[in-house]
Amino acid sequence: MAQFTLDCFLESGNAYKAALMLELCGADWTPRRVAFFTGETRSPEFRDRNAMGEVPVLTHHRPDGDVVMSQSGAILDYLAGELGHFGADNETERLEILRWMFWDNHKLTSYTATYRFMSLFQKKTDDPVAKFFHARAVNAWTVLEGHLADRSFVACDRPTIADLSLCGYLFWPDQIGMDASQYPNIQAWLGRIAAMPGYKRADELMPSGLDPETATA
Amino acid sequence: MAQFTLDCFLESGNAYKAALMLELCGADWTPRRVAFFTGETRSPEFRDRNAMGEVPVLTHHRPDGDVVMSQSGAILDYLAGELGHFGADNETERLEILRWMFWDNHKLTSYTATYRFMSLFQKKTDDPVAKFFHARAVNAWTVLEGHLADRSFVACDRPTIADLSLCGYLFWPDQIGMDASQYPNIQAWLGRIAAMPGYKRADELMPSGLDPETATA
Repeated sequence: MAQFTLDCFLESGNAYKAALMLELCGADWTPRRVAFFTGETRSPEFRDRNAMGEVPVLTHHRPDGDVVMSQSGAILDYLAGELGHFGADNETERLEILRWMFWDNHKLTSYTATYRFMSLFQKKTDDPVAKFFHARAVNAWTVLEGHLADRSFVACDRPTIADLSLCGYLFWPDQIGMDASQYPNIQAWLGRIAAMPGYKRADELMPSGLDPETATA
Repeated sequence: MAQFTLDCFLESGNAYKAALMLELCGADWTPRRVAFFTGETRSPEFRDRNAMGEVPVLTHHRPDGDVVMSQSGAILDYLAGELGHFGADNETERLEILRWMFWDNHKLTSYTATYRFMSLFQKKTDDPVAKFFHARAVNAWTVLEGHLADRSFVACDRPTIADLSLCGYLFWPDQIGMDASQYPNIQAWLGRIAAMPGYKRADELMPSGLDPETATA
């Protein structure tokens, strides 16, 4: 058995954050496909393991028992400690990394991912709710674009879990309704992440959660 | 000068999280009113201090210079370390606290606060976007209600910064469209927080950000 199991599916950028972290760290891990689009995360069995009903869920198979954890931000923080990569070197760095990860969860991924879900999978591109989320996402991208004007990575002078959190959905500009040419600093930063040794795309790391019978949601 | 200055305004539940933390810890702190409703957080001066353009902002006046920080989750984590209250006693606790704080930022406060802003200040109660946010907030409250069925506090057997994060908007059931009678476990938990020594309501801790001339947004 691998050391880590990640409950995940290709279409989840939040799952990609954890999968990319495991891969870049060279961890011994395996994905477990979650049939999200046919309701697995709403099942009682899934909720028993994770009351939040969300993907990703990380299981660390330890000699003294499994550690099970949800929320990509907490998983990234845990893995940085366990695997010794992409974490903070001191308390000032730790807090700056944490600050951007909270902001990602609150303002960037939250709006970006919901817009993408509505437009890509529910085909509600013209829905006023989707438009509202897209406008909020644009605000967040604009803040990130400005922040990256004079630095290579988000929180430190090297890649950290803050970068791996924020990039989760941004490698899919077409799917999130981002005109990439308007965000050159973000594109350059994504290029630096993609150039890291061991980098892989989401489809190279995780199985699709779509129904294989119909290939739709 | 007080040891801590908190840029805040009464109507922000995210600011309340930090203000309540400072007060419960007996910190030497003072609020600085942010004129949110007349656009202060969009001003270049404010953005210079905090690129995220958000309240709260904590300034810790230290002998070696000011430490300035945004994002309530990062502020709570920082204050737990500085003030020695409501933090984790071990790594397992630290990760469980962090997990619930990320979930709060991603799923509970984010939807609850946006619904409240649209309904209370923009009077858009019947707007489809407001209804969408309210439905997502109800989902989050339901998860929290279930989680609190068999425990007194969210992450540990005592109050922690996870509780102070999650409660930020929940003391205003009428404003967030919550039928409190449907959430008895949440009400009992809020009662335990309100019974803590030094507890104060938001209006006892922070000045209003509304325009005093018109008393409107």
